[in-house]
Amino acid sequence: MTQQQIMVKSALDAWNTHINRTWNLFTELSDEQLEQPTASGRNSGYYLLGHLVAVHDGLLPLFGIGNKLYPELEEPFIQQSEATGSDKPPVKELREHWQQVHTKLSKEFNQFTVEQWLQKHTAVKEEDFAKEPHRNRLNVLLNRTNHLAYHLGQLVYLKK
Amino acid sequence: MTQQQIMVKSALDAWNTHINRTWNLFTELSDEQLEQPTASGRNSGYYLLGHLVAVHDGLLPLFGIGNKLYPELEEPFIQQSEATGSDKPPVKELREHWQQVHTKLSKEFNQFTVEQWLQKHTAVKEEDFAKEPHRNRLNVLLNRTNHLAYHLGQLVYLKK
Repeated sequence: MTQQQIMVKSALDAWNTHINRTWNLFTELSDEQLEQPTASGRNSGYYLLGHLVAVHDGLLPLFGIGNKLYPELEEPFIQQSEATGSDKPPVKELREHWQQVHTKLSKEFNQFTVEQWLQKHTAVKEEDFAKEPHRNRLNVLLNRTNHLAYHLGQLVYLKK
Repeated sequence: MTQQQIMVKSALDAWNTHINRTWNLFTELSDEQLEQPTASGRNSGYYLLGHLVAVHDGLLPLFGIGNKLYPELEEPFIQQSEATGSDKPPVKELREHWQQVHTKLSKEFNQFTVEQWLQKHTAVKEEDFAKEPHRNRLNVLLNRTNHLAYHLGQLVYLKK
């Protein structure tokens, strides 16, 4: 392996580990448990499941590998807080969406070469990328893994 | 910048961002707030502060850049749960320890070359590292950043 491949492996391993840990937790929790707040007055597991699906679904257009599978999740789970109480899908549906989004991402991520990981994401302009080459897909992957770990730390509070 | 330098920059940026966010939160919270549980029946902010200082202090020997500054934190904040209630330092002292540990780490991290980031950490044997070259310092940095993000997600629950 080249130095670059070793680094990409570390980043992908961390992503996959956190995706698996989070999915295992969602599987372990009943629908009723997921609908509880993670702490008094805080987001429910249900909301965080929808939030994570919506954010990860956004990686498809951000990486230029497809359109969002569930663009309707953007408003209730990213733009709005849980308290807003707009129309939201049932928890069983969100569980299926999680699997669809991550199956798709996993397939794409496993095919990316080092060069593709270091390409700019679609939210940065060519001229900015020339000066800021770290604004690439790998950087987004690191940030999304940290974002996932942050919410996983909250989701574990749903366990008795 | 080389591809490797770009990748190291992303990993270091993520670490520094989370260290700064966590420190800003600790600064914002009073000693009394830090001593509250992050959620009902869960770790206090005080315990998580001690836990993070102890874990990050462990990076010094793990990276082969020095001995732990506060080896006495290992037992109460890593080996034992908060409930065990062994002798623990006052919160003001832990705040100072946080700054000492991160000032030292920051100085070392900024001097590491790409080659040094890709060197094995001290917990892996030479013969294993030859087969598993991703068991390097950079990999540890990614994992510790995720670990920090995980607990930061819990610590924000201390904010009103």
